[in-house]
Amino acid sequence: MIVILKPHSTEPEIQDVIEEVEKLGYTPHPIRGALQTVVAAIGDERVHQTLESLNALPQVERVLRVQKRYKLVSRESADGDTVVDVDGVKVGGKNFVIMAGPCSVESEDQLLATARAVRKRGASILRGGAYKPRTSPYEFQGLGKEGLRILDLARRETGLKIITEVLSERDVEHVAEAADILQIGARNAQNFQLLIECAKSHKPVLLKRGMNQKIEEWMLAAEYLLANGNSRVLLCERGIRTFETYTRNTLDLAAVAIAKNESHLPVIVDPSQGCGRADLVKVLCRGAAAVGADGLLIEVHPNPAEALSDGQQQVDFSTFGDLVTELAPFLQAAGRTLV
Amino acid sequence: MIVILKPHSTEPEIQDVIEEVEKLGYTPHPIRGALQTVVAAIGDERVHQTLESLNALPQVERVLRVQKRYKLVSRESADGDTVVDVDGVKVGGKNFVIMAGPCSVESEDQLLATARAVRKRGASILRGGAYKPRTSPYEFQGLGKEGLRILDLARRETGLKIITEVLSERDVEHVAEAADILQIGARNAQNFQLLIECAKSHKPVLLKRGMNQKIEEWMLAAEYLLANGNSRVLLCERGIRTFETYTRNTLDLAAVAIAKNESHLPVIVDPSQGCGRADLVKVLCRGAAAVGADGLLIEVHPNPAEALSDGQQQVDFSTFGDLVTELAPFLQAAGRTLV
Amino acid sequence: MIVILKPHSTEPEIQDVIEEVEKLGYTPHPIRGALQTVVAAIGDERVHQTLESLNALPQVERVLRVQKRYKLVSRESADGDTVVDVDGVKVGGKNFVIMAGPCSVESEDQLLATARAVRKRGASILRGGAYKPRTSPYEFQGLGKEGLRILDLARRETGLKIITEVLSERDVEHVAEAADILQIGARNAQNFQLLIECAKSHKPVLLKRGMNQKIEEWMLAAEYLLANGNSRVLLCERGIRTFETYTRNTLDLAAVAIAKNESHLPVIVDPSQGCGRADLVKVLCRGAAAVGADGLLIEVHPNPAEALSDGQQQVDFSTFGDLVTELAPFLQAAGRTLV
Amino acid sequence: MIVILKPHSTEPEIQDVIEEVEKLGYTPHPIRGALQTVVAAIGDERVHQTLESLNALPQVERVLRVQKRYKLVSRESADGDTVVDVDGVKVGGKNFVIMAGPCSVESEDQLLATARAVRKRGASILRGGAYKPRTSPYEFQGLGKEGLRILDLARRETGLKIITEVLSERDVEHVAEAADILQIGARNAQNFQLLIECAKSHKPVLLKRGMNQKIEEWMLAAEYLLANGNSRVLLCERGIRTFETYTRNTLDLAAVAIAKNESHLPVIVDPSQGCGRADLVKVLCRGAAAVGADGLLIEVHPNPAEALSDGQQQVDFSTFGDLVTELAPFLQAAGRTLV
Repeated sequence: MIVILKPHSTEPEIQDVIEEVEKLGYTPHPIRGALQTVVAAIGDERVHQTLESLNALPQVERVLRVQKRYKLVSRESADGDTVVDVDGVKVGGKNFVIMAGPCSVESEDQLLATARAVRKRGASILRGGAYKPRTSPYEFQGLGKEGLRILDLARRETGLKIITEVLSERDVEHVAEAADILQIGARNAQNFQLLIECAKSHKPVLLKRGMNQKIEEWMLAAEYLLANGNSRVLLCERGIRTFETYTRNTLDLAAVAIAKNESHLPVIVDPSQGCGRADLVKVLCRGAAAVGADGLLIEVHPNPAEALSDGQQQVDFSTFGDLVTELAPFLQAAGRTLV
Repeated sequence: MIVILKPHSTEPEIQDVIEEVEKLGYTPHPIRGALQTVVAAIGDERVHQTLESLNALPQVERVLRVQKRYKLVSRESADGDTVVDVDGVKVGGKNFVIMAGPCSVESEDQLLATARAVRKRGASILRGGAYKPRTSPYEFQGLGKEGLRILDLARRETGLKIITEVLSERDVEHVAEAADILQIGARNAQNFQLLIECAKSHKPVLLKRGMNQKIEEWMLAAEYLLANGNSRVLLCERGIRTFETYTRNTLDLAAVAIAKNESHLPVIVDPSQGCGRADLVKVLCRGAAAVGADGLLIEVHPNPAEALSDGQQQVDFSTFGDLVTELAPFLQAAGRTLV
Repeated sequence: MIVILKPHSTEPEIQDVIEEVEKLGYTPHPIRGALQTVVAAIGDERVHQTLESLNALPQVERVLRVQKRYKLVSRESADGDTVVDVDGVKVGGKNFVIMAGPCSVESEDQLLATARAVRKRGASILRGGAYKPRTSPYEFQGLGKEGLRILDLARRETGLKIITEVLSERDVEHVAEAADILQIGARNAQNFQLLIECAKSHKPVLLKRGMNQKIEEWMLAAEYLLANGNSRVLLCERGIRTFETYTRNTLDLAAVAIAKNESHLPVIVDPSQGCGRADLVKVLCRGAAAVGADGLLIEVHPNPAEALSDGQQQVDFSTFGDLVTELAPFLQAAGRTLV
Repeated sequence: MIVILKPHSTEPEIQDVIEEVEKLGYTPHPIRGALQTVVAAIGDERVHQTLESLNALPQVERVLRVQKRYKLVSRESADGDTVVDVDGVKVGGKNFVIMAGPCSVESEDQLLATARAVRKRGASILRGGAYKPRTSPYEFQGLGKEGLRILDLARRETGLKIITEVLSERDVEHVAEAADILQIGARNAQNFQLLIECAKSHKPVLLKRGMNQKIEEWMLAAEYLLANGNSRVLLCERGIRTFETYTRNTLDLAAVAIAKNESHLPVIVDPSQGCGRADLVKVLCRGAAAVGADGLLIEVHPNPAEALSDGQQQVDFSTFGDLVTELAPFLQAAGRTLV
């Protein structure tokens, strides 16, 4: 770490910092510059205590980290791209996967119709929320276990793999029975207890970026999963919260490229949440493919105008079909194969 | 709700919208304007399904809510300010409460020394984290149950009430035994399962605003607590995430005034998290008092430079003492009494 | 406009609002809902005074606009996509244009070498800053008129068209002599006097989105240009400011698609400013092409490590060459032809 | 500056960086850490070229500045607080100044009535916009020179000093004749040509923070004024743009305290723009006083509901009177005297 002292710090003040650096387990290396002294603290930042607490000293101006804070998720920790096997569907590498389905599971009819429709049009994984994190307690909260039963039915009928969100540590076990991928939503992106519990399930986990999460924090959330023994992790960019109000979130496509550079894990893009508007989903799917995403998570509903949640961002079957068709040349340009 | 149609929508398109509005339980009331038609949908928005899904129709430009989405937390639902009784300490009304203590409970010595120091200088509630939500899995995660034991010891020795954070639904029961107030942190501000579990404990709950939470969403998170039977809720503003990097967060003091206008619940300010810098805490406490806060949550540590977490934002005993002394005239100006 | 009154407003309070609506030129149309009264104000919002001032009345909860605030830039105002003719280079429609060159013009050698290099590799327009808006007064401010002379030289030698930024109303006239496109930078995105002056020059104008500009405000800034008689406008998305610090800005590729939906004007993407990192430029160019951009503005320098400004985001000649080559399949997928 | 190399950089790659550092005028000082090498570059960062361009080298991970980028505005450059003399009204030190008046000058009657009202209630400086920066070209743009004439009239009649915004370099000279303080608005916060022109006028300048401006950038904008010979500068916090939509901007009161720590210049708070809602202005004035502001800039209008601009954030005479009365105990607590 680098400790920058204020200009005009006295020699005893500098010595104090040097001693604290040593006490906290680093080898101090002072550099006396033109105007300010800097103390380089040599040591492994991931083993020793952080020196950021030295900011509490009045003579310290700033403390800067040198090393990256994540290890297992970083590209250096793996030999090439990780390919996550979702019960036979391989996510990552040259493959491109489409996960599609309704925001919420609303009924057997609704889910089965959607499952058949998205399967026919190119999806290999079915999404559908049984437990829904809703901003208001008065909104539809999902069908719960009945939703899981319907998802399982759809899996058996169509052969599609299932992804569904888990909201509670207590639900991990039974959600893991119905699901092939556990989804951790943006609101739980730093619910570390839930992350640890999902890690222990040994199911593949799709980890959404929190709506206010810096890329470093997103990587560290994934690190929680790997450090707790689960390396079948899919990262998912779903838009961040900014000042812009035209869209519900600002889809950060650069973050996809960055996550691919920083990490060996596959990266999925959720354009539905990413913009919150059905009319933009199609074009954002192209953008996602072009910047190197490994797959998409798309909300599809038989009749979006009457959906029980987030109808405004769900596309209907025909739009979904067009979307997949029009995506093909971009997948080809990106050297990807739809699985 | 108000459904705004695109200019040049045809009569059949307008009729479609009118029918959908009716189908979803509202009485439609079309208004044909100079350029655009607007359909006012009359009905209780908190009972019927939202019409936002109508955005999925191509002729719809936007859908706007009329009513506020929260009810029980709103000022209209109560007769004046709610005063929350924390085992004898009354929070709210004309009272002003100071909660202080270390970011993390690190040892018996550290906590007891801090408890005595803050009690002597004006605090009536002791804070201290036993379970810590840390961005990285490699950082100090708190002492857990041992931390709760030490908090309980401090309570018995000093008579201070205890506030501590709860991270997991599974911990609510045993944390509630050691704590007088359950704290829900910013990262769990929309962990609705945790909110519901805390509501059921019937302990007072301090609910921090999420770092990306709009005020409406914060109120709705509190609504989860009240709707699940717990009305002893303290709202806590602790800074939001913005582009500014000088501070860790941007303390939104206007939000304190807004929360006081919108809701009958007491509002606490956390200036330590709010700026992430010990050198700003003192002055932000004054600002909080001036805009109408009902109390403060301040991080205090015997030796911040060696703290195991967030040393940079913790003040030492002497600074804390000065802070309380210098706050006095501002409390007087605000018509508040320290309890 | 829609005026929403607070619940429990009295009849005289409602009448007051109705009278003010009438006084300000609209036809009031009150709707008495379940809990609240709403007054729809019928009239052309772009002609009458805004009713937002009615928020000042205590019984008014909110005032909402119905109509879009921009007219000339909106898609409805034109017959299909506008193609801007830049002295023979046609920007828009099925064409795709690459503008490339150094952040700053530093010397004759530097600019001419770059001009030749980017021309050979596919650019048809040369960028280069003669006047530089720098955050600090101690940083390199550009060569000024000497820079313009060098740009003109490069134009004559290579036949490339020239785009360069104008910072001051007083410079518009002489910059317009050396440039084929006047660039208005993000920091001047709401410098309306400069916009009006550029409009009057009758040169094509590239208008960057301000780093904190909502899409509506960006469209309205363009409206200033069109309303002042200049319709040869190129919109340019260059990243917005968010909490993320890995990149300098967050490139908002959804905004490109939105601008194409909302407006008939061509949209250019600046990936160099958009992320502030040379290592991401290549992949963001693909994303831009995929979401429907009409061209790119790319910073290219012979030796970025020694550039006098923004070296970290400039690519060298060889990277630029690879970038254009690798972009080709994405342009084809998008149905675009490089001009 | 500090150049951090990627882990596993080779010796020749390290040497390359060392050579570049030297070439750009610094003395390199390599430190070989546990995992990564860091090169400290010793030299005055405000004199030499920035090393940030070294980010363009593939072996460089990050480049960090050590020194602060501003000098003349920094607290170290002055002996205590600067007091700016506005034609006899002293701003800064223990004084507290209230500037008040309408958003726009609309007529002689409106301005004179307001001037008399605010003078009687405690203001010593009159604000009023003659040139208005409006988001849309179709909105009221101000009375221009006629507005300046009216401001001058009010000055002569009431003895109040005048502050008014200047939008164009070309207007600086004649605005400076009518105004005692030139105001640079948030949209022009990085219009450096306008800053330089205002500096040259030798009038006091109030510099608003841009709505997306980091504190460092705000200080550097002020540095443009001081470096161009004008040290009579008032900094003005007026809210930043965030995701929150309840308020128009998020007033950053911590920034006031920070600006007071970092700089010797007086700091004014604009609560009207800061929140965009008349109902919050009063309480935010108290917060501003409590965190150390040197004055306020408040929008006051005889009849806000019919104001030609920003009526929703203007208070009427009676509210303004109450505001000043209720502010008194907070000024006393802060040790300030109203001038």
